[in-house]
Amino acid sequence: MKEQLAIGIDLGGTYIKAGLVNQNGTIIAQLIKDSFAEESPTAVLEQITICINELLQEQVSHRLLNADIVGIGVGAPGIVDWETGIVKYPPNFSEWTEVNIEKEFSKKFSLPVKVENDANVAAIAESKYGSGKEKKNFLFVVWGTGIGGGIIMDGKIYRGRKGGAGELGHISIDYNGLLCNCGNNGCIERYIGQRYLSGRVRERLEKLPQDILTRQTMYELVDGNLHNLELSTVSAAAHKRDALAHEIMTEAAALLGIALASAVNLLDIPTVILGGGVAAAGPYLLESVEKSLRAHVLRPHQDECLVIPATLENKAGMLGAASLVLG
Amino acid sequence: MKEQLAIGIDLGGTYIKAGLVNQNGTIIAQLIKDSFAEESPTAVLEQITICINELLQEQVSHRLLNADIVGIGVGAPGIVDWETGIVKYPPNFSEWTEVNIEKEFSKKFSLPVKVENDANVAAIAESKYGSGKEKKNFLFVVWGTGIGGGIIMDGKIYRGRKGGAGELGHISIDYNGLLCNCGNNGCIERYIGQRYLSGRVRERLEKLPQDILTRQTMYELVDGNLHNLELSTVSAAAHKRDALAHEIMTEAAALLGIALASAVNLLDIPTVILGGGVAAAGPYLLESVEKSLRAHVLRPHQDECLVIPATLENKAGMLGAASLVLG
Repeated sequence: MKEQLAIGIDLGGTYIKAGLVNQNGTIIAQLIKDSFAEESPTAVLEQITICINELLQEQVSHRLLNADIVGIGVGAPGIVDWETGIVKYPPNFSEWTEVNIEKEFSKKFSLPVKVENDANVAAIAESKYGSGKEKKNFLFVVWGTGIGGGIIMDGKIYRGRKGGAGELGHISIDYNGLLCNCGNNGCIERYIGQRYLSGRVRERLEKLPQDILTRQTMYELVDGNLHNLELSTVSAAAHKRDALAHEIMTEAAALLGIALASAVNLLDIPTVILGGGVAAAGPYLLESVEKSLRAHVLRPHQDECLVIPATLENKAGMLGAASLVLG
Repeated sequence: MKEQLAIGIDLGGTYIKAGLVNQNGTIIAQLIKDSFAEESPTAVLEQITICINELLQEQVSHRLLNADIVGIGVGAPGIVDWETGIVKYPPNFSEWTEVNIEKEFSKKFSLPVKVENDANVAAIAESKYGSGKEKKNFLFVVWGTGIGGGIIMDGKIYRGRKGGAGELGHISIDYNGLLCNCGNNGCIERYIGQRYLSGRVRERLEKLPQDILTRQTMYELVDGNLHNLELSTVSAAAHKRDALAHEIMTEAAALLGIALASAVNLLDIPTVILGGGVAAAGPYLLESVEKSLRAHVLRPHQDECLVIPATLENKAGMLGAASLVLG
């Protein structure tokens, strides 16, 4: 049988990562381009087209002409209608209402195209090639700008009615809590997502007396400009044993454990795979999430709770997207 | 083909309800007995045995000797291991640690026996014979002493890893909230389950001046003895347009909607079937749950949210239990 290859596109708000992937999950060629999300849908689609064309060229240059390109898989932010391939209102994409990505590219390249929510795509990748390989059921959490999630049940992604399942970030932990972008109060994303957590850290730092502030690792990491403070700054400082950063990250991890406890009680899936930039912060973070999760779930689940790191890092998007069409 | 019959046992802390059920979900004969839960596991098992024997007699007296009894299904409280048929630590059952119900009765009656968590059994019944008949996916909530739940996915009960899924009552709505029996804070059951809600109502009533208290419908319904106040009292008073009772039930319904919003965001299953004693309180209660649910879920789910009443009432347990073995 001919080798089967697929093109996996990881569409992000800043970059497009694209890879030519084989059935074993090996990335044969990859490239990265600006997504031009702030320009227009047309500009974004044009960039994806360029990526696909370049990867098709790679097939030639890698002398893989004997292989079949079986399709194009796309992981996209926003709401993705799995059945139609329509991507709706991805955050930070200008002028983008609803675009049928599947139709666009299946016509242009005469290949099967499948589009899926980016967190689901990463969950699928971890399930097929990453730290979920041996796990039939797990909750996948992406801790980054927001809190994304995916649910793997019986080895497959669970999509729900219209592909909207897995929104772990919008589990509320406090019905009187902080108002989330989504309109609900107390969503876990509102507490620990990058865009919120870094703001809260900044506020705490700004309250410190100048002489103590200037000695903070986080202050040094952003060269004294607190407006450049990101979640990765806090995470890096915690890694360097900065006490305040460590405290903040541990608190955030404990809150994540609380939100996950509701999900585990509901689903009886006590294995959590944690991805996203923060997951690389070190084992203390995973341990803090796990400790909090165990402390809050129903007794029969307590000993079963396990929080482990995702292993595919920024390749998860490409690999998972490719696997949508690799079958 | 011969008609197929099954025995469905609904094991409760106070009563055992047992029915002889055919494939169409018609209860041909039924009986109710004390469960003797406060005595011992032996006493309970003996009562179940009597029920089964009487129903087997009913088969004779109904001249259904041509029909096959295909098995015995049991819905039980506590933690039920679906695979083994072991019932663990059912609340309010004395001296009961772990009892293998399946083994006990399959040996005694030489029939296949299946045991399932009581909330799951009721969810299955609503799915097969009740208001979930036309719904492939729904969340089932039993609002009674506690808050039980079941998840129907693609027409089947979703059990999770070990049959522990569906614990909607232990979704936390406030991580700093009231301490639940389970050890977690803020579980929705801790706010609106009968054993907690009636206590809170009593406290509110006791603070009223005597002349106002004596004019309260709830006070009249319990003949002035507030210790007899139950959730059904509050619910009945609300039905009679008692302002305080109505306010309390509406608040409770709103809290349930908040907990359900986290579940809907996670599962993309926006249909809720509400059962349990309270569900009969009237449409205002369902409307309050639905209104709150819509106000708290992610936008794509808002228009899809639907909260409808369970229709099988106290037959759900027998019917669902029987259907475990009717295939």
